[in-house]
Amino acid sequence: MTSLPDFREASYGAPYIGLLPAGPRDAITDVPGVFVGHVTLADGPVQTGVTVVCPTPATAADTGAVSPDAQWDPFRTRIPAGAAVINGFGKSVGLMQIDELGVVEAPIALTNTFSVSHVVLGQLRAAIAANPEIGRGSPSLNPAVFECNDGYLNDMQAFSVTEAHYAQALANAASDFAQGAVGAGRGMSSFGLKGGIGSASRVVETAGATYAVGVLVLSNFGRASQLTIAGRHVGPVLDARLAQPEQSAAPERGSIIMLVATDAPLDARQLRRVATRTAAGLARTGSVYGHGSGDVALAFTTGYTMPHDAMGRVAPAALVPDAQLDPIFQATADATEQAILHALFAAESVLGRDAHVRRALADVLPDWATL
Amino acid sequence: MTSLPDFREASYGAPYIGLLPAGPRDAITDVPGVFVGHVTLADGPVQTGVTVVCPTPATAADTGAVSPDAQWDPFRTRIPAGAAVINGFGKSVGLMQIDELGVVEAPIALTNTFSVSHVVLGQLRAAIAANPEIGRGSPSLNPAVFECNDGYLNDMQAFSVTEAHYAQALANAASDFAQGAVGAGRGMSSFGLKGGIGSASRVVETAGATYAVGVLVLSNFGRASQLTIAGRHVGPVLDARLAQPEQSAAPERGSIIMLVATDAPLDARQLRRVATRTAAGLARTGSVYGHGSGDVALAFTTGYTMPHDAMGRVAPAALVPDAQLDPIFQATADATEQAILHALFAAESVLGRDAHVRRALADVLPDWATL
Amino acid sequence: MTSLPDFREASYGAPYIGLLPAGPRDAITDVPGVFVGHVTLADGPVQTGVTVVCPTPATAADTGAVSPDAQWDPFRTRIPAGAAVINGFGKSVGLMQIDELGVVEAPIALTNTFSVSHVVLGQLRAAIAANPEIGRGSPSLNPAVFECNDGYLNDMQAFSVTEAHYAQALANAASDFAQGAVGAGRGMSSFGLKGGIGSASRVVETAGATYAVGVLVLSNFGRASQLTIAGRHVGPVLDARLAQPEQSAAPERGSIIMLVATDAPLDARQLRRVATRTAAGLARTGSVYGHGSGDVALAFTTGYTMPHDAMGRVAPAALVPDAQLDPIFQATADATEQAILHALFAAESVLGRDAHVRRALADVLPDWATL
Amino acid sequence: MTSLPDFREASYGAPYIGLLPAGPRDAITDVPGVFVGHVTLADGPVQTGVTVVCPTPATAADTGAVSPDAQWDPFRTRIPAGAAVINGFGKSVGLMQIDELGVVEAPIALTNTFSVSHVVLGQLRAAIAANPEIGRGSPSLNPAVFECNDGYLNDMQAFSVTEAHYAQALANAASDFAQGAVGAGRGMSSFGLKGGIGSASRVVETAGATYAVGVLVLSNFGRASQLTIAGRHVGPVLDARLAQPEQSAAPERGSIIMLVATDAPLDARQLRRVATRTAAGLARTGSVYGHGSGDVALAFTTGYTMPHDAMGRVAPAALVPDAQLDPIFQATADATEQAILHALFAAESVLGRDAHVRRALADVLPDWATL
Repeated sequence: MTSLPDFREASYGAPYIGLLPAGPRDAITDVPGVFVGHVTLADGPVQTGVTVVCPTPATAADTGAVSPDAQWDPFRTRIPAGAAVINGFGKSVGLMQIDELGVVEAPIALTNTFSVSHVVLGQLRAAIAANPEIGRGSPSLNPAVFECNDGYLNDMQAFSVTEAHYAQALANAASDFAQGAVGAGRGMSSFGLKGGIGSASRVVETAGATYAVGVLVLSNFGRASQLTIAGRHVGPVLDARLAQPEQSAAPERGSIIMLVATDAPLDARQLRRVATRTAAGLARTGSVYGHGSGDVALAFTTGYTMPHDAMGRVAPAALVPDAQLDPIFQATADATEQAILHALFAAESVLGRDAHVRRALADVLPDWATL
Repeated sequence: MTSLPDFREASYGAPYIGLLPAGPRDAITDVPGVFVGHVTLADGPVQTGVTVVCPTPATAADTGAVSPDAQWDPFRTRIPAGAAVINGFGKSVGLMQIDELGVVEAPIALTNTFSVSHVVLGQLRAAIAANPEIGRGSPSLNPAVFECNDGYLNDMQAFSVTEAHYAQALANAASDFAQGAVGAGRGMSSFGLKGGIGSASRVVETAGATYAVGVLVLSNFGRASQLTIAGRHVGPVLDARLAQPEQSAAPERGSIIMLVATDAPLDARQLRRVATRTAAGLARTGSVYGHGSGDVALAFTTGYTMPHDAMGRVAPAALVPDAQLDPIFQATADATEQAILHALFAAESVLGRDAHVRRALADVLPDWATL
Repeated sequence: MTSLPDFREASYGAPYIGLLPAGPRDAITDVPGVFVGHVTLADGPVQTGVTVVCPTPATAADTGAVSPDAQWDPFRTRIPAGAAVINGFGKSVGLMQIDELGVVEAPIALTNTFSVSHVVLGQLRAAIAANPEIGRGSPSLNPAVFECNDGYLNDMQAFSVTEAHYAQALANAASDFAQGAVGAGRGMSSFGLKGGIGSASRVVETAGATYAVGVLVLSNFGRASQLTIAGRHVGPVLDARLAQPEQSAAPERGSIIMLVATDAPLDARQLRRVATRTAAGLARTGSVYGHGSGDVALAFTTGYTMPHDAMGRVAPAALVPDAQLDPIFQATADATEQAILHALFAAESVLGRDAHVRRALADVLPDWATL
Repeated sequence: MTSLPDFREASYGAPYIGLLPAGPRDAITDVPGVFVGHVTLADGPVQTGVTVVCPTPATAADTGAVSPDAQWDPFRTRIPAGAAVINGFGKSVGLMQIDELGVVEAPIALTNTFSVSHVVLGQLRAAIAANPEIGRGSPSLNPAVFECNDGYLNDMQAFSVTEAHYAQALANAASDFAQGAVGAGRGMSSFGLKGGIGSASRVVETAGATYAVGVLVLSNFGRASQLTIAGRHVGPVLDARLAQPEQSAAPERGSIIMLVATDAPLDARQLRRVATRTAAGLARTGSVYGHGSGDVALAFTTGYTMPHDAMGRVAPAALVPDAQLDPIFQATADATEQAILHALFAAESVLGRDAHVRRALADVLPDWATL
């Protein structure tokens, strides 16, 4: 592919995907108002954690350096959102109401499958602390907790994640954050390699303005033989190199959660269309949305907010029309592929429960670009 | 039920449904900007027709007495809409794109099952006449044609409806229109009786303003034993009186199309929620959404429009918030039940193909209120 | 309605709904293989609980009197199921995977909104105890926990329900069970009155055999003015009599969970069709699926099972064809309406947190049949 | 990619996709019981046609050489099917009922957008000829007609396709058929190049047996800059070479229809899962499911049939369990990508209306493999 110019440089030694420019961090926090925090638990058979993606109104975030939770109560001032279930083998919580009402009303949390309940409880307690009438005079909170199964490396049956870990991950939310084997991604696997948290962003011009599109993935999917890096189907080589052939041939029991943020003002119907485009980026890495993989996407905008208890009519922002969405669709697909690669290239090898190991891509395929 | 006051008076001798007031016509054309036109074909074995519901922007309609087609090109200035498929045994056309984009871009037409294609062609030709670039420089039109099977009375295999009938029905669109065995309703049956076109409206206060909700149904569903009028389950008596017991026991092969109009500014997601509430009004008449009944609802608003080819951002109207939708939901259910009753009470007996007869409710159950 | 014969007698003084016969208990446990258990917490401001509906294979259940959990591991031998979300303002857990795979793999639990997490944890621990490889060598469990908000009577912020309560409710599962203000229904409200758990059944002949259809509801929906009992719109009278007019006028914050069981062999697609028919029964009681009401239905069959880990092809039972589903649809709608009435008629008045009271229908409307 | 072995050889000079073997024709007709027929209209400004994919029961097809229409009445003996709408900007007909009932009951036809109605009428007349009671004593037929917009090359406003063309295409159905600029694909464009009809197949082992998976696409999507061939992103070079830069930059107004056939016995829910996997193959060619592209997939099985009018219970074939679907998912994605490439590599250049030209990939990118 030597005749094609290299437009950009990606992070962690990963190839750069697509023709659109990235934002300054090449991460979801390039979208104004978005912050990310982790809690990582790494201790012998416990290899897991919590990651929180905190969407706040872009305008509030623009005002300065104060922490996001000081500015914004997501239960009162909700964030427009739309979801796409690409393959529904999963246990994420909150999607039914997001589909009905088109908003998220809590920071979005990621964790392992067995820890969803504890993180939900953490969200509930945080919301009650801020709004003591929740579940009394007010409706109850709709939690937003997404999960993948990290049981190969992590002893999920230990139920190591607590409510307090959610609060801590939220308190850690910031514009700069680590990728790879951190937070909820600590114990995750992809393509028989170490997976985890990855993120990327792209910047687009459409409808007369410039917008950021950011993606954060919790990457835990894929069989070794499928891996495709920037169009190179390196899976067969990877498959041969891995010392666990039986592992790579096993049915896929992973999942991927893909969160898409943008400051482009879109409504819930449009955000569901955006969320669907993660499937394109996911497919380019080799996924065929395996039977056992819960492949779920959620897109939200920080471009405007929806009040909880409006009595009168509410004007959303002027919206990007559907006919101008193609650049945002392209950015979503490209950033999703890039984010998955960042997760793979950033992750370090991890030794988990019962001497299970997932090696880093950098260790196993240092020569991927020449295969 | 003597202790409950009669709040309103309904048309055609039907009982009045619910506690909300009706608009002046108790019909869908109480919604500003909505016009209805029929073409009725009634000649021996041909008992069918076309009905067009023409939604125009409320503001354009307010300007005066000119015909709707002179003011509004639905392909250029689209109407926000949302659909609900309650039971999908049907052949209506246009729903896939309405679901994706949340707009209708043609007047909504009703006809018999075998005539959908001719009406689609009529819509295409009308749109091409107004926009010669359709299918060339412009995208193609998304038709909106809904149907029921009137084959018991009408010889559908005669393919009697032509493209010209669509144009004529559209030209006939007006604020006043007939109900019962007219237009697309000419050959329809309900509960073993004569069905057809029915309409109703309710007026609600919400979010600080007054809005109209109107419903028009093409009623062709229900077995005799199910009929329930304003809560009275008169079906068993009806079943006994009908001379066609085998007919009333036959599997349901009907359908009902329910169109909901409002001038309340709602987005496509909210309009889908509104469309779903027709299921409540439908159920009160005895329907259990039979296997063979294509029960389909479409809701649209005349409160604002969506331009076809916007290059920049587009501001929808200030929307009624979801938390204030309950009055509109109640109005939708009540007006749906009322519209179905209007169809039954307004319909005259019809003699169709092969000496098939559907008698009017007024003939068979004049004493319904005392059963 | 004196000219219509009374076909059957219902329980708790409620009117009998429809023309189909009920099973011997007029309850969901008339379906072979279905057992129901409660844990009720009633102590001052704590008025809540857990109800478990345990679907086991009809054939296993037929073998005798042993407790269901001794015979059946739902994770290994799964139950075909399909869901319908009528209004998605709710926090139930498990629907995404049920939609994808068409099975439930845990006993179905009901509780209050804030207690979902604890009940999920109870399900996880029970499944791990039976299958120690869950989340390790095996996939993780898909919980099935449904909820309504009982916050008017119950102090949900007390988080009174524990994991152990789930296990206890499951251990209590039996063919005979209480209705009304018990189990998860202890703190629920409907139409400004005391709601709770209700159940009913109908027996149908179709496709050459006899099948039972049973419904169990957790009823927590409806404004007083809407209440309709067997077609009588008594809501206005109820509204006038209740001492809390502001309460009955408040926006609906309830919900209803509707579980449908049958021993008719149906696949997941057909079961979703069945689940949708609960909307008809629900509407007849006055509901218009209010904005704030999470109206969710799940239908399952005990007629056959699906193995978890089949390597070869699997023959489902011979299925009832779609064209023969109408009797099952009718039974579903009728049993849903009947179950809601049973919940209202069976419930006793309850005094809960902050001196909040919900009175029994029998106290407020003893004369409902003459209004 | 020299270190990866070439497993297979594809047709038309296209690269071979994936690791699975193809069937003997590498086309959808490798699936037992599937036949394909075209009618091509190529005359100046008329560049369009009809393609029919005729699914018959595998067992009937196995019996010999008679034409499919002599053996099988799809209205009486229906084919299990499931659809996936990836992007719903399209006017295909029949999906609502396929979603509800899980069957197709007519041969599946492809044509241009404005010709859907004429092909529907052709399907109706053919079904009535075989079943004179359709629309009288029997329910009406659910047509299955899919479309793309070929208006760049073809004068759609000429309405050149007639009912007779449908009948002729069906009569032409055979195991061997042409690909490229033929049938419904005559006027289609992809990536600024000539698109059209493409097909491919893969053979998988799962659940203890061998099954074929075949795909046929009507390819009319994609901007030049997106084109990716077997992982090589050659779009930028293509974009530079095309003489119509404004064309390649124009918003996407194409679409792709993807039909998936298999003889693996699957139910409708599973077939919808299979249909969804076309999105993965589509994405690998560069698509991000553009706003204006109607991307629709339909999967069906010839492994068993569903009778129309069963009175008693019906046993489907023993089904492949969900846990064994991954090979079929992989085959679907691979065959979809391969079929799109076949469409591009097989197509010849076409001169259409108003001197519009779409050049063949072979003309513009003969050196694609070295870019």
